[in-house]
Amino acid sequence: MASPTPPRDDRPPRRSDGEQTHAAILDAAMRLASIEGLSSLTIGRLARELGVSKSGVFAHFRSKQRLQQETIAAAAEVFEREVFAPASTAPEGLPRIEALCEAYLSYVERGVFPGGCFFAQLLAEFDAPDGPIHDEVQVGQRGWLQQLEEHIGIAQRAGDLDGDVDRAQLAFQLYAPLELANFLATLYRDPSLTDRGRSAVRATLAAAASSDRTST
Amino acid sequence: MASPTPPRDDRPPRRSDGEQTHAAILDAAMRLASIEGLSSLTIGRLARELGVSKSGVFAHFRSKQRLQQETIAAAAEVFEREVFAPASTAPEGLPRIEALCEAYLSYVERGVFPGGCFFAQLLAEFDAPDGPIHDEVQVGQRGWLQQLEEHIGIAQRAGDLDGDVDRAQLAFQLYAPLELANFLATLYRDPSLTDRGRSAVRATLAAAASSDRTST
Repeated sequence: MASPTPPRDDRPPRRSDGEQTHAAILDAAMRLASIEGLSSLTIGRLARELGVSKSGVFAHFRSKQRLQQETIAAAAEVFEREVFAPASTAPEGLPRIEALCEAYLSYVERGVFPGGCFFAQLLAEFDAPDGPIHDEVQVGQRGWLQQLEEHIGIAQRAGDLDGDVDRAQLAFQLYAPLELANFLATLYRDPSLTDRGRSAVRATLAAAASSDRTST
Repeated sequence: MASPTPPRDDRPPRRSDGEQTHAAILDAAMRLASIEGLSSLTIGRLARELGVSKSGVFAHFRSKQRLQQETIAAAAEVFEREVFAPASTAPEGLPRIEALCEAYLSYVERGVFPGGCFFAQLLAEFDAPDGPIHDEVQVGQRGWLQQLEEHIGIAQRAGDLDGDVDRAQLAFQLYAPLELANFLATLYRDPSLTDRGRSAVRATLAAAASSDRTST
């Protein structure tokens, strides 16, 4: 049967089409989950959002659980690209800590996800209920705090931060204003509230600066 | 027809029965919402949790919206009783700020809600989606921050806190560790993580203390 379409070798391979659709669904899924929460992310809800059939979305993920897991993985790639990658060019220690905090606040300020930080949402949503996503959130949060602690240790050995400061406590104090800045900037539709986070990080680092450093 | 039940005048009035049931449903609703989120709180979900019929719960609330609104109001009463009331006996200014932060951390530590602070959950859930609950969360958050700011102002006039410190910024820096302590204590099932919040509040207040006060 004659076909009006161009010869097959001129068209993008079928697999790439499917991959593009898959990526577009995941993109909508991340955006939706950042606003409404991952628990609200059903195949039906997503199909309605995309204006496609439920069976079309179902064919890509087969279950709500797999859809949720792939959405988290896709959001982790965005976080890697938007926060970790820009910060990774800063020297280790104090500059890296400052770069990580700034990269996070910039990612919130630029509205990378329309509902605010995907992982702050995920923390609040899955802090209490048991299950595989709760376990994944625990691992992610531990990794984030450990990364801060690691560079606090380097900054202490370099004499940039007071060696007596408790690393886990300081990491907590740097993380807290980032998290609240995200929630309040989202709540009040006011990206400039990330500046409260910036001032808090600056004040916390200044208070933890080694007295050798501040006196010179 | 003879009845084995005691004479009617010995039993509690019917209205009180209904009120007790209503309160018991709201109690379960608050607990459930603190774990799974208010959006998951449907009449059907709540009936399943309580092991009663959907129509039995429906008769009390008539709509998901009313159930959610009454649940928020009931949780606000709990917050009033567990956080604001104990703190209100402290003198205004710096002691009140310390008492408010301590009352909040104690409320988290004691697991008043099984899924952590009801209103931290509500903030994360309704920061992004438009609607009446979003608006209510804005008002609640503003009230909480304004209460902190008000007592920061009193503490500044009393010479307990540095008069040059930005009140809104300091309120933000006191609030941030409370919020993160709540999420991490819930995530790691470790109430002792509220101590990170306590240390952070102490450090923040010490940094904002007026130099007159710290030098005497």
